[in-house]
Amino acid sequence: MNPINQRRLLDDLEALSHFGRGADGGITRRALSREDADARKYVMTRMRALGFDVKHDEVGNVRARRAGRKAGPVVMTGSHLDTVPSGGTLDGPLGVVGALAAIEMIGEVKTERPIEVVVFVGEEGSRFRRGTIGSAAISGHVSVSDILKLVDPDGVVYGDALATYGDEGSPIPAKLASEEVHAFVELHVEQGGVLETEKIAIGAVTAIAGLSQRQVSFLGEANHAGATPMDLRRDALAAAAAWILSIEKGARELGVVGTVGKLEVLPGGKNIIPGRVNAICDLRAPQAELLSAIDAFVVSSLHGIGDAREVEIEQSLLQRVEPGLMDERAISAVERAAAAAGLSCRRMTSGAIHDALHMAEICPSTMIFVPSRGGKSHCPDEDTAPEDLVNGCVTLAHTLIDLAG
Amino acid sequence: MNPINQRRLLDDLEALSHFGRGADGGITRRALSREDADARKYVMTRMRALGFDVKHDEVGNVRARRAGRKAGPVVMTGSHLDTVPSGGTLDGPLGVVGALAAIEMIGEVKTERPIEVVVFVGEEGSRFRRGTIGSAAISGHVSVSDILKLVDPDGVVYGDALATYGDEGSPIPAKLASEEVHAFVELHVEQGGVLETEKIAIGAVTAIAGLSQRQVSFLGEANHAGATPMDLRRDALAAAAAWILSIEKGARELGVVGTVGKLEVLPGGKNIIPGRVNAICDLRAPQAELLSAIDAFVVSSLHGIGDAREVEIEQSLLQRVEPGLMDERAISAVERAAAAAGLSCRRMTSGAIHDALHMAEICPSTMIFVPSRGGKSHCPDEDTAPEDLVNGCVTLAHTLIDLAG
Repeated sequence: MNPINQRRLLDDLEALSHFGRGADGGITRRALSREDADARKYVMTRMRALGFDVKHDEVGNVRARRAGRKAGPVVMTGSHLDTVPSGGTLDGPLGVVGALAAIEMIGEVKTERPIEVVVFVGEEGSRFRRGTIGSAAISGHVSVSDILKLVDPDGVVYGDALATYGDEGSPIPAKLASEEVHAFVELHVEQGGVLETEKIAIGAVTAIAGLSQRQVSFLGEANHAGATPMDLRRDALAAAAAWILSIEKGARELGVVGTVGKLEVLPGGKNIIPGRVNAICDLRAPQAELLSAIDAFVVSSLHGIGDAREVEIEQSLLQRVEPGLMDERAISAVERAAAAAGLSCRRMTSGAIHDALHMAEICPSTMIFVPSRGGKSHCPDEDTAPEDLVNGCVTLAHTLIDLAG
Repeated sequence: MNPINQRRLLDDLEALSHFGRGADGGITRRALSREDADARKYVMTRMRALGFDVKHDEVGNVRARRAGRKAGPVVMTGSHLDTVPSGGTLDGPLGVVGALAAIEMIGEVKTERPIEVVVFVGEEGSRFRRGTIGSAAISGHVSVSDILKLVDPDGVVYGDALATYGDEGSPIPAKLASEEVHAFVELHVEQGGVLETEKIAIGAVTAIAGLSQRQVSFLGEANHAGATPMDLRRDALAAAAAWILSIEKGARELGVVGTVGKLEVLPGGKNIIPGRVNAICDLRAPQAELLSAIDAFVVSSLHGIGDAREVEIEQSLLQRVEPGLMDERAISAVERAAAAAGLSCRRMTSGAIHDALHMAEICPSTMIFVPSRGGKSHCPDEDTAPEDLVNGCVTLAHTLIDLAG
């Protein structure tokens, strides 16, 4: 095997960062946009230079195959190139160009099974309402025809955007059967601060947290901030504040995460007691039972606070995504790979959703996490030390050899 | 004395409600606007019909005098006609047309001192950045020249707006010396729910609460809601929530009021931990020491929470208005008047700021409160039962006779 070519890895990341870079340094590549197409074209050119057989499928995924001694089933790896608005350079791209670096490290070593590097289309939900579009098509979680009908906020239909994406020739079918895929492993930045805080090089992902998002409104009574004694108030914001703290407490107790990221106070006058607060809570847990438990806790706390404060509550479920369990054989392959490279490794869950969630529906899957500086992601400050990037690629290479035999 | 003419009182309020009524039923009469001028013209016509000597001063206050046996000092009463955006029909107008009703009740009864009904200009701060403009000019709290230089958000200068307000003839000086005013009493809706809750007809106001408003920012760290464990968060909104509840607790303990009415969460993504919260807190207390105490409590709590949660705090004082003590002789005159009319009465503080705050700087002052239905004010639902309105006018009439001798 060759060493990881750190220079080329960094050059690839740097090259990709120019597609969609904004004035604030953030990268904006919406799914199927011109910038997304340019980044994908760069990667496809690199793949062809490495001798891959490069294809695209019905929804826009790229699938580049390196032959094995046998025809199939295939070991897949890869990630996405689209970003959130003003995102970073690593969320997605690392798992793509990192896979290329790992393949270069594997070099002349022949594997039993073929290895495919996949570029999933539309992982971030920032254009077509839903994310993980490419992996949902591959796993059959969502039908190709439903995906082609998706519409962005400007009214552009997915199928039409795909037609101008630049692909030549006929696409291959998107959906894969379980028999066709031996395993999937995705290299990604952690996006949280656990590895950095614990000074551990590699995370082996055991589960991808499921998600429950609820839209909540607190309906109190808007009134004069000076003339209304504390005991005669029905303050919607004070009720929301009590709820926010109860979510924090409940999530801590259950060992999950809960966040209120969006909150609006009405009427919003500095001398008016808030009459209405609209908020969205985002709850995540790596097991379905835990997700249901935190969700039930949050709803119960909501109604308890509403009753105690005579504030009316309106709430509804925005979306629930079930957690995805990663595969024990894939996880232990990552652990062995890290050990072989002399790297510290811990098992951990992913709080963020990734394409591996859908891939796990059809094959043994896992993810390799590397530390995120300051735990930051989805922002221009997203960063990982070069040695940590290399560690991830080395671990991926060893894992691929292990899984591909 | 005559009985209060309830029909005419309600007709006057109804007539005024047409000047600036919006589609939602709310009344919008910004200071010195066309609607404000029309309402004022209606009142001036009524005043002249009652035999008043009607004058206007340098900043736009109306001063209508009913002669006494002696030339002066004068007993003043009145309120304002301007409103908050989409406000109610009583906040302001009741104290003006209620004064006319009281004068009609007094009828032929001769008083020693003259009585003046004043229409204060620009009590609500909804146009020229500051409120209680007319009373600030009369008391000398703000100079006439400074008032004439005020500018509204559209760039219109106060002095220019005043020139088109419709007054003919030369204005009288706005500022009054202490020797010229014997007492001031203002009839107003409570705007809170104390009188209604306690089933008391009349409130005799002992103090007008002072105000401390602070602009506060919580600077935490925006991060991925899924990937960031609870213990690695610096959630600006959770910090703000803890602070909001501490204001509520502190205000209850000190027997004052504290409100966060305006709050903004950034970046505001449903799956992003809030990195920044901007808020304004509004604290009120009827004594300067109490106001300083709640203010100190809130600032200390703010920094305590910031330290505990590693959230940076930025805060600054937006404004502080000192509380105004009402005069014991004026207060007891109101109590005697209520008793004479067979009405229940309690002493209370005003949480809202009124023109009486500035009048108290130059003469013994108080206010007469009548119940607000549901404690509501500054909204289209603002309402008071007709018998409560009449009770207020009767009490005002007796108080004026008491004070004017």
